[in-house]
Amino acid sequence: MNISKNDNFSEWFTEIIKEAELADLRYNVKGFVVNMPWAVMIMKKMYALYEEELEKNNHLPAWFPAVIPKENFEIEKEHVEGFKAEVFWITRGGDKELEEPLALRPTSETAMYKMFSLWIQGKSDLPLKIYQSTQVWRHETKSTRPFLRGREFHWIESHCAFSSKKDAEDQVLQDMQMTENIMHQEFCIPFIFFQRPEWDKFPGAIHTYAADSLMPDGRILQQPSTHLLGQNFAKAFNITFLDENGKNDFAWQTCYGPAIWRMFASLISVSGDDRGLILPFKLAPYQIMIIPIHSKDDKKIEKKAEEVKKTLENAGFRARIDASNKSPGFKFNFWEMKGVPLRIELGDKELESKELTVAKRFDGKKIKIKEEQIVEKIKDIAVEIQRFLLKRADDFFLDNTSKAYSLEELEKTIKEKGGFVMIPFCSVEIDGKECNEKLKERLHVDVRGERFDVKENPENKKCVVCGKEAKHYVYVGKQY
Amino acid sequence: MNISKNDNFSEWFTEIIKEAELADLRYNVKGFVVNMPWAVMIMKKMYALYEEELEKNNHLPAWFPAVIPKENFEIEKEHVEGFKAEVFWITRGGDKELEEPLALRPTSETAMYKMFSLWIQGKSDLPLKIYQSTQVWRHETKSTRPFLRGREFHWIESHCAFSSKKDAEDQVLQDMQMTENIMHQEFCIPFIFFQRPEWDKFPGAIHTYAADSLMPDGRILQQPSTHLLGQNFAKAFNITFLDENGKNDFAWQTCYGPAIWRMFASLISVSGDDRGLILPFKLAPYQIMIIPIHSKDDKKIEKKAEEVKKTLENAGFRARIDASNKSPGFKFNFWEMKGVPLRIELGDKELESKELTVAKRFDGKKIKIKEEQIVEKIKDIAVEIQRFLLKRADDFFLDNTSKAYSLEELEKTIKEKGGFVMIPFCSVEIDGKECNEKLKERLHVDVRGERFDVKENPENKKCVVCGKEAKHYVYVGKQY
Repeated sequence: MNISKNDNFSEWFTEIIKEAELADLRYNVKGFVVNMPWAVMIMKKMYALYEEELEKNNHLPAWFPAVIPKENFEIEKEHVEGFKAEVFWITRGGDKELEEPLALRPTSETAMYKMFSLWIQGKSDLPLKIYQSTQVWRHETKSTRPFLRGREFHWIESHCAFSSKKDAEDQVLQDMQMTENIMHQEFCIPFIFFQRPEWDKFPGAIHTYAADSLMPDGRILQQPSTHLLGQNFAKAFNITFLDENGKNDFAWQTCYGPAIWRMFASLISVSGDDRGLILPFKLAPYQIMIIPIHSKDDKKIEKKAEEVKKTLENAGFRARIDASNKSPGFKFNFWEMKGVPLRIELGDKELESKELTVAKRFDGKKIKIKEEQIVEKIKDIAVEIQRFLLKRADDFFLDNTSKAYSLEELEKTIKEKGGFVMIPFCSVEIDGKECNEKLKERLHVDVRGERFDVKENPENKKCVVCGKEAKHYVYVGKQY
Repeated sequence: MNISKNDNFSEWFTEIIKEAELADLRYNVKGFVVNMPWAVMIMKKMYALYEEELEKNNHLPAWFPAVIPKENFEIEKEHVEGFKAEVFWITRGGDKELEEPLALRPTSETAMYKMFSLWIQGKSDLPLKIYQSTQVWRHETKSTRPFLRGREFHWIESHCAFSSKKDAEDQVLQDMQMTENIMHQEFCIPFIFFQRPEWDKFPGAIHTYAADSLMPDGRILQQPSTHLLGQNFAKAFNITFLDENGKNDFAWQTCYGPAIWRMFASLISVSGDDRGLILPFKLAPYQIMIIPIHSKDDKKIEKKAEEVKKTLENAGFRARIDASNKSPGFKFNFWEMKGVPLRIELGDKELESKELTVAKRFDGKKIKIKEEQIVEKIKDIAVEIQRFLLKRADDFFLDNTSKAYSLEELEKTIKEKGGFVMIPFCSVEIDGKECNEKLKERLHVDVRGERFDVKENPENKKCVVCGKEAKHYVYVGKQY
């Protein structure tokens, strides 16, 4: 790595993707990239943790078709308006025109909800909580970047139906909690969970909530959002259930979309440093890289390396030996750049002293560990790594969350620091849109919304834009 | 289940898919189905086992784009001829025509190999072993059936490049071994690994090898195939490497396609019985279903159920309690139909005796197990289940593998038993195609090929069709 993350984050991001072989951008279709093995191995672990959490909360996996018939796609008016500019259309099979064009799913509401209307009959069919881990495709016109924005991306979408608005609202809270448990606690990506303003909702939703994370350059990256769909889609797709009184009612729905691809972009960026990736211990494809150091008795070293590897594997760790004919120095740099959490150096010294030299990626320090204590000590270090990454990420996040009570103050903060700035604001209803437009024009920031986890009410404060009474504290920032 | 698997397999298959909620066929695009949660939960475990085996053998995962530009797709002539009738084409993005149509991948050779040509430069870049777990899409004109044939299906494709023909041939053997280790030993699906005759090769391959399995009705279902691509694609896609002598050479390639979707069809069919699915212990989403029996003290039963569940979970088992308000009889039938391997019945008797009643799905027997021995005993039963399913499948497979030395004998065997029939045959080269056509016409069977794992050479035998000297023993059968 020749570029400093703090000095030039954008170039650093491009460089790390190339150097650590995370994505290959040379695939010859615009906006599509090849996700390379190291990235896929990490994302598979991210998927597994997220899926486990979803299933713990009674979401069940399904696989819906990737194609959506035009007639389904057009059922919900706002939704079709919101997505139609971005849809890839399949119009031919072999050399025949299809009778009806098929949309390559940009998101799966319109694929799923027609089935939901068949599956849901009575109250005992509710709640229905279905998720799928898939790709979606969108004919993006904005410029694309691997893991941040692409014409193809990898995500999870979870779709739920309930018998009451209250249940649906509780699901929003659960989604926030899942984001906290996995994205924050496991992936070390801090966020604020916002209720988006009226003018920034998902097409077809009555409210949109979203977890906004922060990139090292102080710009905001939207992570999973949850949409309270109310009964809009249920009415469009005729999803009804017979309640206890024999009355037909429309289901209440939510959908939640943890985009693993984009979380990976945050993971790289938030945790990495100028020497490359730093991976949380649980997510590392290889957790410990054993590097034999050339010795007067290479056979002995080899044997010991195998022995240590076996010990670590038996304890459930993912350990590898790099026995290639590159130099130790090259190997040290290479695996540090790939973000492998621990390196064990194994040479004559270690063989004699029966103490292993362990280098920690996260703080760059080397320690000696007695061979018989290696498993126990690595368990401790794993906890230490997670604590370090979380704390560093949280500190950065807090340092970049500010307050401003005037437009001048806001402008200054945005220029000097970036990040989130809390401001008093007139309205998150549609009548606040004009002030948001002014913020966009003047400062290139926009209103992310009100925090959903805590109520923050301004008293006797004025909107920093129009000077009218502020009804809300909202957060603004520059977004990706 | 109202239909007998042996009497009417086809209807049984349709029924089990509906009753056990494995796929929903009501999705409104022809040839596409919704894969339902119970099926997906099982297939996810199948994927995980297969991926683990691939990675053990140094295959690395990647995610390639689902779209392939027309220019790539048309590079290898035989390949494009073989697939072009089945390709879905994306021609529009939003309301704009795309400059060049994009193929929705029917298989990924033409997506991957252009990248391979960039990745492979020297001998140290080889072997390159990349796999991906994905869906593929084919505009099938044959009639579709869930898990057997669809316009969308879920598989793994593994693509390898080597520096010598020998290495590529060794990969074919490794693929056969992986099929044995996972499809046979774990999924309990027996197979014969054939080298396909010349006229039945993958478009672009120099040899095709395939694992054929058997369905309960005696028909043959092709499972994973491996294609020895030789240097054909390497020449078309310019995949070259510099050898030790500084000479440029084309890489040798193979590809292997374990279709999890289709293996699931075999798994259902081979292991199931008239009461529903029977799942191998490792693949069962829930391995043990605890069913509380109504008691004078329901609270106590509930508590005990939770206690047993915790014990089982701590031992690494997937246990669930069915506390719904259905009757125990209903629950017994329901979970038997779903194929859950073990049921624990928990009522007053069990509470008093401290012995649990355990019902085994595979043999329908109930046994008593002392509470403190439950974990240990279930470990034994897991082994017993796997042994039973394997043996039963192997027995059926062997019982349905016959020999015939004349056309009359062959006709009789096919009519009475179906399955595989070994026959002496003139030639698996292109000059044998005529005899194969005659077999197809007259008996609706075709030649699957020669066994690849053992050499079976006829001596002084005549081809059952043309009467010329038989050069090979081949196997024939009716296929799906």
